[in-house]
Amino acid sequence: MSDASPSPVTAAILVIGDEILSGRTKDKNIGYIAEYLTNSGIELREVRVVPDVEEEIVAALNALRARYTYLFTTGGIGPTHDDITADCVAKAFGVGIAVDPRARAMLLERIAEADLNEARLRMARIPDGAELIENPISKAPGFMLGNVIVMAGVPSIMQAMLDNVAPRLTTGARVAAETIEAGNLPEGLYAGELAEVAKSHPGVSIGSYPSMTPAGFRNQIVVRGRDPETLAQARAAVADLVARLQSART
Amino acid sequence: MSDASPSPVTAAILVIGDEILSGRTKDKNIGYIAEYLTNSGIELREVRVVPDVEEEIVAALNALRARYTYLFTTGGIGPTHDDITADCVAKAFGVGIAVDPRARAMLLERIAEADLNEARLRMARIPDGAELIENPISKAPGFMLGNVIVMAGVPSIMQAMLDNVAPRLTTGARVAAETIEAGNLPEGLYAGELAEVAKSHPGVSIGSYPSMTPAGFRNQIVVRGRDPETLAQARAAVADLVARLQSART
Repeated sequence: MSDASPSPVTAAILVIGDEILSGRTKDKNIGYIAEYLTNSGIELREVRVVPDVEEEIVAALNALRARYTYLFTTGGIGPTHDDITADCVAKAFGVGIAVDPRARAMLLERIAEADLNEARLRMARIPDGAELIENPISKAPGFMLGNVIVMAGVPSIMQAMLDNVAPRLTTGARVAAETIEAGNLPEGLYAGELAEVAKSHPGVSIGSYPSMTPAGFRNQIVVRGRDPETLAQARAAVADLVARLQSART
Repeated sequence: MSDASPSPVTAAILVIGDEILSGRTKDKNIGYIAEYLTNSGIELREVRVVPDVEEEIVAALNALRARYTYLFTTGGIGPTHDDITADCVAKAFGVGIAVDPRARAMLLERIAEADLNEARLRMARIPDGAELIENPISKAPGFMLGNVIVMAGVPSIMQAMLDNVAPRLTTGARVAAETIEAGNLPEGLYAGELAEVAKSHPGVSIGSYPSMTPAGFRNQIVVRGRDPETLAQARAAVADLVARLQSART
């Protein structure tokens, strides 16, 4: 990605699809995009999942695109009647939508002209003014209109589209993260002092994350921040705290 | 679950946590809750993920609890400084919050009284008027206030809390789903006629879901609805369409 920005570059994800809300399909895109953006210096601030309902999609598009630097959407850009994302984006921006000759040409790389029926041509309908995002897998493109990046829901295609669009995005200073392993040291033992460390290190955020293992809880403390020096200081303070409490227990 | 309701019972999920937005932790709760609710006759209509920031959490709590029958939250109820969900719920409802003697007693099942420090007691702080949700794993309870169900973020604990609270919830008619395998029949071949089938079967929703396999795309068509007869008719119409197009290709 290019053009590092001095102020935070933010993003939201809008996942579109009844199949996620019914639980039939387990989303794999949110975690992938989240990690990708963090590594690229773009801060993911919100995620929403909405059904294949025009008013819901348009309302979420407008709420999120107004609030963050970028909005990434996944799902709803195929050839079937429930694929309404492109129309919703056109509606949200108040622009027209029509078959785009560039998108049609992309479809013809995979589909013979005689087979390019009305349903398939739906995948070439692109809102006016959008840039296309190439799809090396099934050719039907995504697009970027203003700050909204519209991608497929199928994970492998979404991932290829993200790689394709990434160089066009402005990025900010990367938020780096350091993990301190607290092992089986109980959160309740370090929570009080950890809050003090957090308070005395403004500019970093400190989180404590328990997970369950067959042997019981395992705790990790994550320190996150943009400034390497502040981050290193906070990391050291947390590591000292954990080491002191661990040795007091043994 | 009890008390089947004649009108749709709806729900939203609010996932609270910086670690999901940074991509460090991959959420496993949305898909689990989605499937659980669908099987229980509760329709999941929206999901949001927000950071550990009070204003964001309170705003999302108030937007979602006003709009759906139930709001399920995950995350942010541990003992550390970044666990602010209970306080945010109290703020959203405009009620007080204090150490609840019942919750304190639950903590004492696992933690000796001498070790019940201030941080650990945070896990017994419950908004006024809430009912507790038992946690058989680590004892610190979740709670239900009005239509908001507050659960842990650790999946095994969240799942146990969901089982605990489920019998208290009103449920509606279950939305049943039938899947028709379209195999490698291209979506673009059946999309036009599928839209006709969808149009002529109001009361059911029909979705087409491609996935990538090593052998190429595999498509599944899902028909969903509450009325068994309407659902069976739509299912048959889709199965006929797929069979006809498949035999025309061979």
